[in-house]
Amino acid sequence: MTANGRRPHEPGTVGIVETQFAHFAAPLPLTSGKVLESFTLAYETYGTLNAESSNAILICHALSGDAHVAGYYTDDPDEKPGWWDEAVGSGKMFDTDRFFVICSNVIGGCMGSTGPVSLAPDGKPYALRFPMVTISDMVAAQRHLIDHLGIDALFATAGGSMGGMQALQWALDFPARVRHVLFLAATPRSSTQNIAFNEIGRQAIYADPRWNRGDYYDGEPPNPGLAVARMVGHITYMSEHSLESKFGRRLRGHDRIPYHFDVEFEVESYLRHQGEKFYRRFDANSYLYITKALDYFDVGDGQPTLADALLPTRAAFLIVSFSSDWLYTAQQARDLVDGLETIGRDVCYRHIHADFGHDSFLVEVDTMTTLVGGYLREHWERFCADKERIKA
Amino acid sequence: MTANGRRPHEPGTVGIVETQFAHFAAPLPLTSGKVLESFTLAYETYGTLNAESSNAILICHALSGDAHVAGYYTDDPDEKPGWWDEAVGSGKMFDTDRFFVICSNVIGGCMGSTGPVSLAPDGKPYALRFPMVTISDMVAAQRHLIDHLGIDALFATAGGSMGGMQALQWALDFPARVRHVLFLAATPRSSTQNIAFNEIGRQAIYADPRWNRGDYYDGEPPNPGLAVARMVGHITYMSEHSLESKFGRRLRGHDRIPYHFDVEFEVESYLRHQGEKFYRRFDANSYLYITKALDYFDVGDGQPTLADALLPTRAAFLIVSFSSDWLYTAQQARDLVDGLETIGRDVCYRHIHADFGHDSFLVEVDTMTTLVGGYLREHWERFCADKERIKA
Repeated sequence: MTANGRRPHEPGTVGIVETQFAHFAAPLPLTSGKVLESFTLAYETYGTLNAESSNAILICHALSGDAHVAGYYTDDPDEKPGWWDEAVGSGKMFDTDRFFVICSNVIGGCMGSTGPVSLAPDGKPYALRFPMVTISDMVAAQRHLIDHLGIDALFATAGGSMGGMQALQWALDFPARVRHVLFLAATPRSSTQNIAFNEIGRQAIYADPRWNRGDYYDGEPPNPGLAVARMVGHITYMSEHSLESKFGRRLRGHDRIPYHFDVEFEVESYLRHQGEKFYRRFDANSYLYITKALDYFDVGDGQPTLADALLPTRAAFLIVSFSSDWLYTAQQARDLVDGLETIGRDVCYRHIHADFGHDSFLVEVDTMTTLVGGYLREHWERFCADKERIKA
Repeated sequence: MTANGRRPHEPGTVGIVETQFAHFAAPLPLTSGKVLESFTLAYETYGTLNAESSNAILICHALSGDAHVAGYYTDDPDEKPGWWDEAVGSGKMFDTDRFFVICSNVIGGCMGSTGPVSLAPDGKPYALRFPMVTISDMVAAQRHLIDHLGIDALFATAGGSMGGMQALQWALDFPARVRHVLFLAATPRSSTQNIAFNEIGRQAIYADPRWNRGDYYDGEPPNPGLAVARMVGHITYMSEHSLESKFGRRLRGHDRIPYHFDVEFEVESYLRHQGEKFYRRFDANSYLYITKALDYFDVGDGQPTLADALLPTRAAFLIVSFSSDWLYTAQQARDLVDGLETIGRDVCYRHIHADFGHDSFLVEVDTMTTLVGGYLREHWERFCADKERIKA
């Protein structure tokens, strides 16, 4: 049995998958004005691309995610599946009986795509020599992958949190190439508070002398600083309710308060565990670059209104917010809904009552399967019927 | 002119004040079972104690506060007044024409009272040898000061945030010695989220190698770690609205995003400034001890209900919560209101619509002057009338 109780070959799972790597020799011009001379994207696919290449969905991952959305790498019964395994497979919200699902690690990342940990042309890790990237740059890189896979238009771009930002950015930067955008627990604009939390995480990394201005790849990495950064982030993903119901004021391994600075309360142990788990798999410089990309994100920047900024879009939108999400609030999602409705776009907005904060988009599997799965099925059938009509 | 536009000798201000120190040779038994053999409290007083010693109000400070509530130490026109100068003085909410106001730095603190930075009997700073303290221990220490000042019963204990916790604890531990409790922007129980934020701040200090398990008094202090801890705390004191309206996404010293890791957004500069300002005046070990005291605070602990725990109280209560305070929420204040009403205590509860988050209790001066000042005046008149009646 695996962590979520399924074996890799059980019905519904995508089974054993493999991460692939696409190398692009073409230079990638970046928002900052700098250019990435060449780059690699790590990606995975699930399901089968149809003959017309019309059934592709690009899932975009959040801050700490990677290309491994679903399935397993091995038969090891202890292996955990991909980060959104509940969402991708036969009969799931991204139904692989119908859709060809793609996910790639973002540039700037540390899970196989080119980022600060990658080797620069001089054979040493880029570290802080890596150029700053934006959500738009991440999407520009993904566009090369979509070309490489021979896909003209994506049936949908989809994602939660930073993934939602990318899904939206696709519709802005490549309007002819996205039919639907699934924007989940995300925002069209990082708020002051969003920036502040990210900056505190970065400060925790900067404060760690092991960080050494990003130059730590042949020494000790700034794990303690990165752990604190993760704790700061992690607490913004959880609601007061989820913390309270999971841990309350329960003590860890004690009947009464021991009065010391080691772990006393369960929630302290949980935070330490989250920090440690994170630095074992994530690169501190990558964390800096990706949080900066989040902070730069403001679709309406330089435009009179958000609606004006949205004018290039052609896609239809499913927008979902969650009542207890205090990182990307319902109001932030509604700003996008209002902007899109002002310019007459096809928008379906759902506000879901959910207790688990920002993480609700991952946790509320049944609700999301009904909602996202239903939206995709309905729009796929409509798309197929339209095609039939045009043929006839 | 001073920072708040008043000179030390203008009407309304308490003018030039001096911090005093009371040394107590008596051992102080602590909640943890340990004993502090002797201790010092730094304190200030404003106004005049009346002949019956019946007009004393003890203001209790919050996490980063000190005994210097109001007034100035010098005539230096650049000197900032005490941390709640708007609240204490002639005609202010704590009206020194009527009341004798006292404030002392908590034990465990670093502003003149005995804490980890103080010298232990062996002549070296306690550092982590200092015993853990609780809110109840802070109050027990203050009780010695109140004895020392010859006051039998305080007309009121008052405070915002951790100050509110102490004000409440007085009514629990010394019911005969407190007539009124002013509990502002506080909670009767630190929530899981409250503990989590404090633990992240502590982790930021632990992660700094300069901390050296608390042993840094003859070396470089863990300023970067303490700065991050302060930033984590500071952001919980401000509402999304206050951050948005103060800084929005404005850039600092740039027309367009420069794309680097130095300050880009105003809010980043603000956070760095807050962190730096804090480590210049505060001790990292003290921060650890006081946040632990906050986390331990749970009035209902070990009792069937909060109401049961409140049974020892005899005081009347003014309880104030603020709509945008997400650190100590209105619900947390209401839990106390409900508990006190269940056992028939005299409770006046006000929920104030205010935009500035937890800091509202310091920011909303006019509202607070009307509310707190009005409550105190009314109850003082009632107290005096009762006394007259008894005499007659």
